[in-house]
Amino acid sequence: MKLMRLPFFITVALLVGSAGYAAELRLSDYIRPMVGTKGEEGNTYPGPSAPFGMIQISPDTDTTNWNTDSGYAYADPTILGFSLTHLTGTGCPDLGDFLFQPQVGTPALEAGTKDRPQEGYQSTYSHAEESAGAGYYQVLLKKSGINVELTAGERAGMFRFTFPAAADASILTDLAHLISGGRWRVAQSHVRIEDNSTITGFHLVNGWAKERYLYFAARYSRPFDHAEIFSAGKPVVYNTYRFRSHNEAAGTNLQFLASFKTGDHDIIQVKVAVSAVSAANALQNLDAEIPGWNFDLVRERTCARWDQELARIQIEGTPVQKETFYTSLYHASLAPNLYEDVNGQYRGFDSAIHQAKGFTEYSVFSLWDTFRAEHPLLSLIQEPRDADMINSLLVHYDQSVDHLLPMWELQGNETWCMIGYHAVPVIVDGYFKGVKGFNVQRAYDAIKTTALSPDYDSVAAYAKLGWVPCDQEDESVSKTLEYAYDDWCVARMAKALGKTADYETFMKRAASYTNIYDASIGWMRPKDARGNWRTPFDAHAFGGGNKLADVTEATSSQYSWFVPQDVPGLIRLMGGNDSFVAKLDSLFDANLSQVFRDEMSTNDLRGCIGEYWHGNEPSHHVIYLYSYAGQPWKTARRLHQVITTQYGNQPDSLCGNDDCGQMSAWFMFSCMGFYPVCPGSDYYVIGAPQIPHVVMHLSNGKQFTMAAKNLSDENIYVQSVRLNGRDWDSPFLPYRELKNGGSLIFTMGSNPGAWGTHPVLPQ
Amino acid sequence: MKLMRLPFFITVALLVGSAGYAAELRLSDYIRPMVGTKGEEGNTYPGPSAPFGMIQISPDTDTTNWNTDSGYAYADPTILGFSLTHLTGTGCPDLGDFLFQPQVGTPALEAGTKDRPQEGYQSTYSHAEESAGAGYYQVLLKKSGINVELTAGERAGMFRFTFPAAADASILTDLAHLISGGRWRVAQSHVRIEDNSTITGFHLVNGWAKERYLYFAARYSRPFDHAEIFSAGKPVVYNTYRFRSHNEAAGTNLQFLASFKTGDHDIIQVKVAVSAVSAANALQNLDAEIPGWNFDLVRERTCARWDQELARIQIEGTPVQKETFYTSLYHASLAPNLYEDVNGQYRGFDSAIHQAKGFTEYSVFSLWDTFRAEHPLLSLIQEPRDADMINSLLVHYDQSVDHLLPMWELQGNETWCMIGYHAVPVIVDGYFKGVKGFNVQRAYDAIKTTALSPDYDSVAAYAKLGWVPCDQEDESVSKTLEYAYDDWCVARMAKALGKTADYETFMKRAASYTNIYDASIGWMRPKDARGNWRTPFDAHAFGGGNKLADVTEATSSQYSWFVPQDVPGLIRLMGGNDSFVAKLDSLFDANLSQVFRDEMSTNDLRGCIGEYWHGNEPSHHVIYLYSYAGQPWKTARRLHQVITTQYGNQPDSLCGNDDCGQMSAWFMFSCMGFYPVCPGSDYYVIGAPQIPHVVMHLSNGKQFTMAAKNLSDENIYVQSVRLNGRDWDSPFLPYRELKNGGSLIFTMGSNPGAWGTHPVLPQ
Repeated sequence: MKLMRLPFFITVALLVGSAGYAAELRLSDYIRPMVGTKGEEGNTYPGPSAPFGMIQISPDTDTTNWNTDSGYAYADPTILGFSLTHLTGTGCPDLGDFLFQPQVGTPALEAGTKDRPQEGYQSTYSHAEESAGAGYYQVLLKKSGINVELTAGERAGMFRFTFPAAADASILTDLAHLISGGRWRVAQSHVRIEDNSTITGFHLVNGWAKERYLYFAARYSRPFDHAEIFSAGKPVVYNTYRFRSHNEAAGTNLQFLASFKTGDHDIIQVKVAVSAVSAANALQNLDAEIPGWNFDLVRERTCARWDQELARIQIEGTPVQKETFYTSLYHASLAPNLYEDVNGQYRGFDSAIHQAKGFTEYSVFSLWDTFRAEHPLLSLIQEPRDADMINSLLVHYDQSVDHLLPMWELQGNETWCMIGYHAVPVIVDGYFKGVKGFNVQRAYDAIKTTALSPDYDSVAAYAKLGWVPCDQEDESVSKTLEYAYDDWCVARMAKALGKTADYETFMKRAASYTNIYDASIGWMRPKDARGNWRTPFDAHAFGGGNKLADVTEATSSQYSWFVPQDVPGLIRLMGGNDSFVAKLDSLFDANLSQVFRDEMSTNDLRGCIGEYWHGNEPSHHVIYLYSYAGQPWKTARRLHQVITTQYGNQPDSLCGNDDCGQMSAWFMFSCMGFYPVCPGSDYYVIGAPQIPHVVMHLSNGKQFTMAAKNLSDENIYVQSVRLNGRDWDSPFLPYRELKNGGSLIFTMGSNPGAWGTHPVLPQ
Repeated sequence: MKLMRLPFFITVALLVGSAGYAAELRLSDYIRPMVGTKGEEGNTYPGPSAPFGMIQISPDTDTTNWNTDSGYAYADPTILGFSLTHLTGTGCPDLGDFLFQPQVGTPALEAGTKDRPQEGYQSTYSHAEESAGAGYYQVLLKKSGINVELTAGERAGMFRFTFPAAADASILTDLAHLISGGRWRVAQSHVRIEDNSTITGFHLVNGWAKERYLYFAARYSRPFDHAEIFSAGKPVVYNTYRFRSHNEAAGTNLQFLASFKTGDHDIIQVKVAVSAVSAANALQNLDAEIPGWNFDLVRERTCARWDQELARIQIEGTPVQKETFYTSLYHASLAPNLYEDVNGQYRGFDSAIHQAKGFTEYSVFSLWDTFRAEHPLLSLIQEPRDADMINSLLVHYDQSVDHLLPMWELQGNETWCMIGYHAVPVIVDGYFKGVKGFNVQRAYDAIKTTALSPDYDSVAAYAKLGWVPCDQEDESVSKTLEYAYDDWCVARMAKALGKTADYETFMKRAASYTNIYDASIGWMRPKDARGNWRTPFDAHAFGGGNKLADVTEATSSQYSWFVPQDVPGLIRLMGGNDSFVAKLDSLFDANLSQVFRDEMSTNDLRGCIGEYWHGNEPSHHVIYLYSYAGQPWKTARRLHQVITTQYGNQPDSLCGNDDCGQMSAWFMFSCMGFYPVCPGSDYYVIGAPQIPHVVMHLSNGKQFTMAAKNLSDENIYVQSVRLNGRDWDSPFLPYRELKNGGSLIFTMGSNPGAWGTHPVLPQ
């Protein structure tokens, strides 16, 4: 597949080798938006977005398949049109607001089917006539011969439609279109024809986000020859009884059709913007961000923004490495999304309009995923933005009816997706990584109040018993483990703030993981309120075998490793280093149990190595645990295996949901040779670098350089390390060694060697 | 019926005659909110409201009967509960937002039926155990023995529930309750339990107003013993998959139940407020307006406000006259309604949140009705408020997609009800009555643009042809007549602003009424685009007999008189004074045609005198037309007949929809001896006073006194008039004689006399 039509000089440059072409290519040229679009795993979208942008215009090939969560599946034969908002890598569909689709001939108002696209507005297309890059997407719609180009700024984007000659060209806007998995619905919408080349619209959606408001504005480069609104497929006509305007309509199934007569190659451009506040704000966003009609300028500005973002981590490597790495950084820089208008207004967790004061409001917090590596990455290279995100979490806390930090926030709504209270590690990690710009006392109050919630997910029972009782609460194994870690984060911050009583309370809770370890089977195991183990129980069954309910999206053999706050304690529980390593080995060497296999799709299984499942987050820190047990070479071996088999620069290169950047952030840390196994702690675990040279530009202006001498496909093991000019034998990288810049120089070799085999955790 | 439980001293005072009790009673004591609640005509509500208030808490006895538009029908045997908003006197149901109903015993979540109230939360009641007055309503719910008292301020009100001893007392809040006529629906709602004694909620309603947002907040005087949310009748319980809070819910059919254990006579109070903007604003409105818990203080403040409002027109008369007059002034001072929050925010015609700058935003503009006498009354005694209302019309114009002034505005929505563009006479009358505080040029632009709309209701065809063609548009007779009058208003203002070309254009359009007068039948008659008369056509048939479509809610014999801008021209058309008077007589003397009768309910017919139908607005100026033709004694006779038979102080005293005060404003002007037959002109028509003495306090601080010497049930004819100390033989009262205060002294007698028989219109 040709992801991007490169100019000729670049194609030539590619042929002369990495040294030769580096000078010619911009960093944004390495972005491959198609990565993650093939198969049902990645759930990324190919359309353009500015870094952390509010608008993401992208083609939708499906709205009803539950697993096509970004709206685009590479294998789908048709494109329904191009909607303005998309989620990146989530495991649940939503957004896809306001579809635009150009047509020629009698305009279709129904989508039609993939099998019979001629009966609707969807069109066949070919990947050979499709291209995607930073701030740009292009496709030729086969049915109409219309070439579609998309670009996007932060809140506003632009369509460039190149039409054939047609007496009846048109552009349809469907306000009822949603990426719904067949479930979500528009509760209310309206549309207004503001003037002869401008429309605005709105819908209120009952979706994954239970009550989601979104507005849009669109300005067309040419006055409409004819403009018509449809409701449930029928023209909204002026009538003298109840509705005396053909310029606006309200309802649940509205469409707008702009019609034109076009000459061959006539270009019609449409500028679009969104707002969660009002149509007026959408118009303001549009006019502020894209005052003119220069598509290429919008694209170029967004490319320049991407150049800036990607320059935060500069690497050397092969073109494939660069494409994979920079696409990862791209994917890790799409969400959370900007969620305030140019005037600072946003729609809060209480559905009301608020003014962001002293911070920028962000939305889309996939926290169960992103606390692991995505936010730790942002705290290093995006400190001001991470502060904005923390402030966004705090206003959500203020606005939440239950005074809880968000669990999975989506456009001003709590989706209550997943488990734990992982806004806590995001805030605590930010605090310990020196992120400034949020009120520390207010943040501490929020994390403590959240962790002490009397209502949320059996936290109260957990606090009392020391574990989440499996007879009272689903997913009790995972919840116990994750609460314990989150509580350790609270304790860390309590200690730093001199709150000794809180520190002791939460440190006690942080040890709760010990309460559900069943030494007789060697795995974490659900326990009821009276202290009895769940029986029968299968540690290798998805969900634990108990109607899938005891373990979250995993087996106990995968989840039992989630004790990042006290890996030495876990090692002791599991019988010491040798036993621990043997158990880790057994995970990778296992034959996948049938009961696990039954729950996984064929695509998901691509992400498995034995029972290790890289495609889902509970496994993400597991490989690094070898290093705690004195066998860092096993970390190196498995990292190399995962990075070479589960990532790449192709559409099918992602083996699991990118989950708003978490999969990508894992890749980048791992390539750089260290990983935040325990966000909120003061250290990273040194793994094994996968690229020869990295310069990370920290937010404080310092540079941290990583170099991997002698790295090759054979030389995957760390032989020695020099950290800031000193020999460094520990597999742990203290944050204090990183934060002021410096260097981490690996010497690699083909044998495991003895480096790092005597781990001592930094104090 | 005992409308109000009067204190003993007042009851005694009533016995000693008007001179004796006048000193004891406050003006607000004369308010009889029950007037207009009996039968299907008045459509008023009995619950409390502050003058022009945003909140009107009132009992609802019905939601599905299309004719119970205020929610309360005196004849209904049960009360469903008490909702927070109501329309006064409209002919279409809406509002009734957020029902509160206290119960004891197992709480019902369904309303039940009138026949079987025991199966639901509705309760029987007795008018003997019910009372209503200024800022106050009380009823004993028979089923539960709970005494309910209501009071209201501008944006916030209060419930006082006196419970019997009960282990299971409760207060239900139903967010799906609507005064819907069986048609409207909640598209979305949510409710939040903010703390142990506070809730907030919201619904978005598809009703008469197509997209109406309303929020509320409620604070309870006692913490909930138990608080529960229900969705579609089922408890909203915490569950671990999608919804992890029992403190909030979203849906279309939500209820909240607060439960308490009560001792005998335990009082639980609930403070409530509404906002069209947000729950936070509703809370802000509540806390700003009612910081404490003193029910009687809230009531007293609202009574004091009513005392102030009613003191704008001070009359002498019998108790019945005072009750009827002050209740009319009360009803004329309920709408339009305040529609901005204490912080100045409101929801505009574009659904967006706006900040009112330099004016106060009002809503509920029943303009087809209120341009006639309601707004002319406000322009005299409520100048600042009328300016606010004009500014509200102008922002609606700004926010309207079609750049039209509103036709029938309801809470930020255009309902497109009725015909004409009668914001024009409201603005123009305000302009010529010296209402300050709005931008005259902006106002002129708005009225001219509205009158030139290319889209609205065949205005374009009317402008071209000189009439609305009946083959292209319904209600063509009424539209032609009303456009012509509205256009005369535009022309008046154009002339005043020196816009000569506009003046000529619109004066030509103002003469359009002549184009549809068919001399062969002597009535206005529908005409098609080619100039052919509608055939067959029945001038005495409701709607003209053509599927009721040619004349709006009337016969041509009623509507043909609508040429207020040029009554002399109409007289000429109709063959001169004698012929004109004979035709007027025929209207009152007619036997009601069957085809008219068939379209009217028995109740509506109560408002008829022959074919004159006082119960609907097209007739409202007709009686005064006698005075233009030199027979003012016939004006006097018919006024006396209407006022003594169609108005009063009883629940069934109103013979037609009060229509946001228009019926009541007619009454007051007529009682005072003059009427604004042609709003926008410089004169009133002098009729015949119906009360002995009036002092009208104009907004400019001047007093205008009316006295009617020798007035009695026999002495109903004007014998002579002294205006500002001079004899005045004209039946017209120039505004210039009124605006600086002064006196209008009638001498009345039992014979018609010769006064006013040589009318000359003021120039």
